[in-house]
Amino acid sequence: MKKVLVQLDSDRLPSLFDRIVAYDADIDVVLSYGGVALEDVRDLVHGAIFTRGGENLKNTAIFIGGSDVPTGEKMLKATQGTFFGPVRVSVMLDSNGCNTTSAALVTKILSLTGTMGPALPGTGPVPVHPGLGLLGKRALVLAGTGPVGMRVAGLLAQEGAQVGITSRKMERARSVGERLKEELGAEVTPLRDRHRGGAAPGPGGSAYPGGHRCRWSSTGETGALDRQSYH
Amino acid sequence: MKKVLVQLDSDRLPSLFDRIVAYDADIDVVLSYGGVALEDVRDLVHGAIFTRGGENLKNTAIFIGGSDVPTGEKMLKATQGTFFGPVRVSVMLDSNGCNTTSAALVTKILSLTGTMGPALPGTGPVPVHPGLGLLGKRALVLAGTGPVGMRVAGLLAQEGAQVGITSRKMERARSVGERLKEELGAEVTPLRDRHRGGAAPGPGGSAYPGGHRCRWSSTGETGALDRQSYH
Amino acid sequence: MKKVLVQLDSDRLPSLFDRIVAYDADIDVVLSYGGVALEDVRDLVHGAIFTRGGENLKNTAIFIGGSDVPTGEKMLKATQGTFFGPVRVSVMLDSNGCNTTSAALVTKILSLTGTMGPALPGTGPVPVHPGLGLLGKRALVLAGTGPVGMRVAGLLAQEGAQVGITSRKMERARSVGERLKEELGAEVTPLRDRHRGGAAPGPGGSAYPGGHRCRWSSTGETGALDRQSYH
Repeated sequence: MKKVLVQLDSDRLPSLFDRIVAYDADIDVVLSYGGVALEDVRDLVHGAIFTRGGENLKNTAIFIGGSDVPTGEKMLKATQGTFFGPVRVSVMLDSNGCNTTSAALVTKILSLTGTMGPALPGTGPVPVHPGLGLLGKRALVLAGTGPVGMRVAGLLAQEGAQVGITSRKMERARSVGERLKEELGAEVTPLRDRHRGGAAPGPGGSAYPGGHRCRWSSTGETGALDRQSYH
Repeated sequence: MKKVLVQLDSDRLPSLFDRIVAYDADIDVVLSYGGVALEDVRDLVHGAIFTRGGENLKNTAIFIGGSDVPTGEKMLKATQGTFFGPVRVSVMLDSNGCNTTSAALVTKILSLTGTMGPALPGTGPVPVHPGLGLLGKRALVLAGTGPVGMRVAGLLAQEGAQVGITSRKMERARSVGERLKEELGAEVTPLRDRHRGGAAPGPGGSAYPGGHRCRWSSTGETGALDRQSYH
Repeated sequence: MKKVLVQLDSDRLPSLFDRIVAYDADIDVVLSYGGVALEDVRDLVHGAIFTRGGENLKNTAIFIGGSDVPTGEKMLKATQGTFFGPVRVSVMLDSNGCNTTSAALVTKILSLTGTMGPALPGTGPVPVHPGLGLLGKRALVLAGTGPVGMRVAGLLAQEGAQVGITSRKMERARSVGERLKEELGAEVTPLRDRHRGGAAPGPGGSAYPGGHRCRWSSTGETGALDRQSYH
């Protein structure tokens, strides 16, 4: 039975990148939809779950993509809300590459800290101590309230790290922290970035005099980030 | 040579259900088009019939779908009108699943009445006595002037049954009867449904006191349906 | 690794003809996009070039089609402008079939003049003396300033023929001649067609008393075409 991946993309033209990657991941048939709106999801999911019976349904999966992450998240929720009982398929959200980018980054960090094991047959490398690989480490996600930063923070926390997330607006950092707590049970410390320059102090930017080594201040204003070295 | 099915769907997003079913029916490549309007059909059919020569053309077929049956019927007519001489391909209409649903229902009825034979190699079960399987039976299609009801009535009549079709408007029932006579040579008796409640008395509804056993009145107003038992 | 062809079509519904021909040419997966505008090209090309690394990229190619040749030409330019260094894929333009039609015609002419060799394994027939097959011949492309005529003129000139191209407006013929000179280094003589009737004197039309044998006048008004026989 053919392995079918249904691509639901909120952009008018469904991502070519995602289509090629899916075929290279050994999917037999990628069925692509562009310009998918939230109200289209239910019928499409019905098409996915009502065509193959029982065990065969495991050969069908849904991929949600597009450049707009919040829309993708709503589509994911609508997709899962259409399933019932055993009538469900695997579903993956990767709008704007947010999940694959985050997962790749954290996997790289685990490799660099020596806590990724060798590749197993049929899979890539897996963590040696899942959930403990970054125990005792501190991690800071700069300007981390966007889709990728938020996911990186959550994944790092799930690997045992003590994680801080910064934003120029304390309110946004706090809101992301609460969401990660609620959705993943992850403890992430919200921090306000004191920098007020024109450019956002992003990763790789030069806003921090000490490069990326900024101090996570635990004194002074709670949760505020000094532009000092962070070791 | 690859078996190609061209899916022409009048809905903006071509039916996922139809695409998966086609791949599971061993089509090699399903080429899907959504948002197909009547005026698009000619060029698309040209693309289907002018690419492969002679015998090879039998590996190409056209499937017409979408939620709107009348539009699908016009597209079917436009498709057939584009063919000429031997330059033609197989074409199937199943807008809104009307034909497959009807055929499955009548096949089930034939099975229940013991007139379906065993499956043959390469096909499903076939009727033992084609055109005679329901001879001497009476069948009533309630609220049957929609796409599925109309097709069910026609198929039942073609299997030899004496068929009635009901509508709350006698005029609609008559018009469907005439169309079935004209297109299939099927004799179907139009009947007016006397029920005037808010909800349409559909199959499975509770509008009929005796459940689905309603009497097909041959007395009183010609062609009117009493809400009495029908044995 | 699957051979992937990305179809970028400026028409709303991507050409079915092109899709089937691609599958019959042994492409494994044709990824089709309809309604592609110039501003969509960059992102789509990124999707094509950033998914497969190094040598593997040779299994990806781009096909540009649609009924509008000038738009296709702009899309081709935008596609090539997105490539950099070795990060590029094969790309073919065949909007409105202009290139395949022209190439097929000139190949046929080479066959008829006996200068096409036999087919080689894995290819079609190839010219015996590339660039010299029509040396010493004169060719006239009537009403040849459209996409196909222009390409035929260029190909004939590249095979060594002395080529004239006609238009009812000398200015258009000249402009095409200049473009062929600039893009292909081909010398093509622009000619004004003196015919002023309602219908364009196209190939196969009856505007020329001597059928297709018109005289390429080298006397009188320079570059003007007499409706006399052309041997």
